[in-house]
Amino acid sequence: MLTTDERARVVVVLVATRNSLNIGAAARAMSNFGFETLRLVRPWEPSFEEAREAAEPAAVGAKGVLQEAKVYAAVAEAVADCTLVIGTTAVTADGRRDLVHPLDRLDESAKRVSEHLATPDSRVAILFGSEKTGLTNDDLTHCHRLLRIPTRREHISMNLGQAVGICMYELGAHGEAPEDATASAGEAPAASGEVERLTEMLIEVLQRSGYITPGAEDATEAKLRRTLRRIPLSRHDAHLALGMARQVLWRLRPRAEG
Amino acid sequence: MLTTDERARVVVVLVATRNSLNIGAAARAMSNFGFETLRLVRPWEPSFEEAREAAEPAAVGAKGVLQEAKVYAAVAEAVADCTLVIGTTAVTADGRRDLVHPLDRLDESAKRVSEHLATPDSRVAILFGSEKTGLTNDDLTHCHRLLRIPTRREHISMNLGQAVGICMYELGAHGEAPEDATASAGEAPAASGEVERLTEMLIEVLQRSGYITPGAEDATEAKLRRTLRRIPLSRHDAHLALGMARQVLWRLRPRAEG
Repeated sequence: MLTTDERARVVVVLVATRNSLNIGAAARAMSNFGFETLRLVRPWEPSFEEAREAAEPAAVGAKGVLQEAKVYAAVAEAVADCTLVIGTTAVTADGRRDLVHPLDRLDESAKRVSEHLATPDSRVAILFGSEKTGLTNDDLTHCHRLLRIPTRREHISMNLGQAVGICMYELGAHGEAPEDATASAGEAPAASGEVERLTEMLIEVLQRSGYITPGAEDATEAKLRRTLRRIPLSRHDAHLALGMARQVLWRLRPRAEG
Repeated sequence: MLTTDERARVVVVLVATRNSLNIGAAARAMSNFGFETLRLVRPWEPSFEEAREAAEPAAVGAKGVLQEAKVYAAVAEAVADCTLVIGTTAVTADGRRDLVHPLDRLDESAKRVSEHLATPDSRVAILFGSEKTGLTNDDLTHCHRLLRIPTRREHISMNLGQAVGICMYELGAHGEAPEDATASAGEAPAASGEVERLTEMLIEVLQRSGYITPGAEDATEAKLRRTLRRIPLSRHDAHLALGMARQVLWRLRPRAEG
């Protein structure tokens, strides 16, 4: 889990981006995961201004990221203050003898980034190339390493906004403090006595409805008892079911008895 | 890591999606990570056809996903053959006493999906709501659990295409091999269609018994639907319960109808 200070030392660099929607999507994903610093190298002219203007008021964080974003003429300037520069690529290592950079899978790369940021004053840049061509060989000369999102080989080309989103998720969210578990674990389980009362009531329902025929009681009872105990009923579930069974039973009982 | 067969049993369900770009982005991310089955519930009219037509020839896989995508009128139909239905939400657990579903962080959810898919013939649906409102309470009654992408609290609202992308990444690339899945995977889980039939039958039982009073149908139905989906019913359990409910119902129906 990166600290706020560490997140502030991660820089997303979009190189030669053409589509303003992708700039907006990148900013939004950065904000979702707590990253602030966006730099654009030679964005296709109107796309950056369009992205700034189109930022929905609702996406407050994304708007902040876009307002603070700086535009650079060259990759060298955009990464000048960074101590680790990582280029993203769709290319896999196999069969690529010309690949001169060490290539990490995204999750390995995220670990590396996290370790690097533990050093005070370090700063990490993650570079994303243009939608059509990715990073050029010239862009790559500014990188220390490459990272690859592990897509399947038959379809490696990702949408730019989604690629940034997945990188931000992996860099930022991994190892986040676990969610307050009350929602999933908070419910008190039903006591055995409650489950037994429910079992008995259901058995009477089944007898009165004719499902349990005389002579076959034991087998059905045993099956029902086992099933109800295998299901993890909460106290609330048990009370709900008891109320329902009581009403059905009342209806099935001969009126004289009721 | 999910096998090809396991990936083929994951279904992405987009509910009431408005923007065709998001449908296209979802299909592309699915293809990137090897998922094939896309279902759309009530997409905003032109958006689905637009997405189909706009699929770039380059994104061959995405085009295949879109060509095979089916449109449904209701969530119940779209998940009828699914044995585990997971809704995505931006909501966090804290301060939400009304949250009735167990809530998992995406990485926990991915492990759960992976374990579930180890059972032959199981099928998992992941539901994504509309861009503006997310899944409705009614949509959620068809879900067994919820998953949340761990964004920062100040900016929880994600772009739909990015949310699908991040889920596909985590499910596909990360789904580590389940540890000893056999223990939990012995019994075939009930399909959503079977649970829905059971739900409907029980609702009629409760109506005929007088438990559900006119005017209060919806609240009780929703409660029952949620409870039955939270309980891990096996196919065998569902058949047993269906047989019982059928008999009780037969008994409760006025003799003229019987």
